[in-house]
Amino acid sequence: MAVKRNELGQKVQLPKIRRQGPIDIPVLFNALKKGDKTALAQGITLIESTRNKDFERAEELVTRCLQIHSNSIRIGITGVPGVGKSTFIEAFGTYLTQMGKKVAVLAVDPSSSVTKGSILGDKTRMEKLAKDSNAFIRPSPAQDSLGGVAKRTRETIILCEAAGFEVVLVETVGVGQSETLVHSMVDFFLLLKLAGAGDELQGLKRGIMEMADALVINKADGENLKAVKLAMTEFKRALHLYPPKENAWSPEVLSCSSLNNLGIDAVWEMILRFLALTKENGHFGENRIAQNKNWFLQTVEEQLKFQFFGRETIKRKMDHYLEQIANHTISPVAAAHELLNLSNPGTDEIP
Amino acid sequence: MAVKRNELGQKVQLPKIRRQGPIDIPVLFNALKKGDKTALAQGITLIESTRNKDFERAEELVTRCLQIHSNSIRIGITGVPGVGKSTFIEAFGTYLTQMGKKVAVLAVDPSSSVTKGSILGDKTRMEKLAKDSNAFIRPSPAQDSLGGVAKRTRETIILCEAAGFEVVLVETVGVGQSETLVHSMVDFFLLLKLAGAGDELQGLKRGIMEMADALVINKADGENLKAVKLAMTEFKRALHLYPPKENAWSPEVLSCSSLNNLGIDAVWEMILRFLALTKENGHFGENRIAQNKNWFLQTVEEQLKFQFFGRETIKRKMDHYLEQIANHTISPVAAAHELLNLSNPGTDEIP
Repeated sequence: MAVKRNELGQKVQLPKIRRQGPIDIPVLFNALKKGDKTALAQGITLIESTRNKDFERAEELVTRCLQIHSNSIRIGITGVPGVGKSTFIEAFGTYLTQMGKKVAVLAVDPSSSVTKGSILGDKTRMEKLAKDSNAFIRPSPAQDSLGGVAKRTRETIILCEAAGFEVVLVETVGVGQSETLVHSMVDFFLLLKLAGAGDELQGLKRGIMEMADALVINKADGENLKAVKLAMTEFKRALHLYPPKENAWSPEVLSCSSLNNLGIDAVWEMILRFLALTKENGHFGENRIAQNKNWFLQTVEEQLKFQFFGRETIKRKMDHYLEQIANHTISPVAAAHELLNLSNPGTDEIP
Repeated sequence: MAVKRNELGQKVQLPKIRRQGPIDIPVLFNALKKGDKTALAQGITLIESTRNKDFERAEELVTRCLQIHSNSIRIGITGVPGVGKSTFIEAFGTYLTQMGKKVAVLAVDPSSSVTKGSILGDKTRMEKLAKDSNAFIRPSPAQDSLGGVAKRTRETIILCEAAGFEVVLVETVGVGQSETLVHSMVDFFLLLKLAGAGDELQGLKRGIMEMADALVINKADGENLKAVKLAMTEFKRALHLYPPKENAWSPEVLSCSSLNNLGIDAVWEMILRFLALTKENGHFGENRIAQNKNWFLQTVEEQLKFQFFGRETIKRKMDHYLEQIANHTISPVAAAHELLNLSNPGTDEIP
């Protein structure tokens, strides 16, 4: 059996899943569902693979994992850079693992292909949690499209849950549509804020407040306390401007000090209240079903595009049409119709 | 030759374009390019038609219109309900027609299918402009999808330009993604605001400020003047928070009184400055080309979806899969793959 060293330099045995050829899915799945973190990591790598030959096997793994019932909660965490997301996740995650929960931390960062890795690029940002046997941290890989990010993250959540992780934290930095994306795949959406610092405006301008189930003002310590109190009043008032949520949950405003471990328990208690309410009124399950339907439709649409634009005949013609459009020698509509007719000359079965 | 009465009750002759059968496209096109408003209206109705048999003929008309060179400017106008959009457009449009310009007013209102018509549903909102021979006003039809709205509006702009309308005003109410949509099809994006009234927040929360080329504070009259001055300072400061635009244009903050016709000329002068700058540095043309490329890609993607989900075999299976997903008897990914395989059993040519 293969042996390698883990982050702490300790020798670890690798499960017998990578022999000569590709990973054996049933073997990988069995190791994963026992909670084997190496198997989980390998499964995620398979999902992240952009090689076509890995695609079907990744789907097989996901389909198997989807059969496993999980009593998980998926929590999205967002906030502008500098708000202290990693410190909060370190404190919050450790609080949960200490009560015996298994916690997975994922990152959605569509910007990383541009900025070459930013959030969670380095596990040292969460030193304590990274060494915690009850925690699993997965950095964000470079991704080229938001569609790719969505697909990968949804499937990674499923794998983590199959591996027994009951709290899945999905971290995102406020870039482009990543918050909307994360919101579409979690049960609870938590917005981290700072008091003062003009951060209020940044949060407001992109409609994130509308999605938030809670606003947690971080760095509520030392000289900051007075500003935090003011900000809480302000945010509570701002939240009142939004129409009530369908699930009957009223978004709450809390404060915490991740550094001093203060207020972390209150965040978890709030989430438990949210769970109790939405499981009672049925919205928890309804939301998951709606998300799954959405996932289904998105997958179909993504695949339609992927298959279409991946065809050799289409690829060859795309540049040609884009150039003609730039030269004003063809209209965008005419170019679209020519391209579509090119792809399925006989199969146009619109009634 | 057919005779009907126009809005003012005057007898007008209809061009000989609708005989027994459907409208003859070359005849319609010839009338339209001479500036015939009835022909223009009929052309737009053809574009808005959801009947499949009208589709190809509408495209033929658009393709013909796209050949006509136009020196137009497309201006998007947005603002929350009550900000005075119609009064502003009435004043601004009349100012332009009085200097001999031909002005078309279109509306993008994806909400109208839900709220049953709101903006521009009634021409009486712009009484003066509606009677102006140099103006053409087109109310927003009920639409079911944002994709449909986008397609229709882009093509309507082309028809108006072919008919000699050199200023195209595209009005939208701030619902959903309609602003982003309008921003993607205009040269200049104008955000109407009110002083005070908490309107600042509403504008900020959806990222509209980032898209605006100008903020115009309306109703700068009477007792409101002091609040307007304050708001202008505030907005100018807020605009400074955004990174500079690629086209080198610095968004401006103006105020006007549409009611008293004050400051309307300054808005047009600002737009002329914008035109001079962006035509000089090439960004005007580059933006149009980028918008056309985007239009091309969107058309391809819309049509791909339309063709796929319009197939009888797919329609029959969709409900089945959605139900299975709700019952947790199939995974979203597996359902998507089954549906895709159903549609093209033999044509899956991913390498």
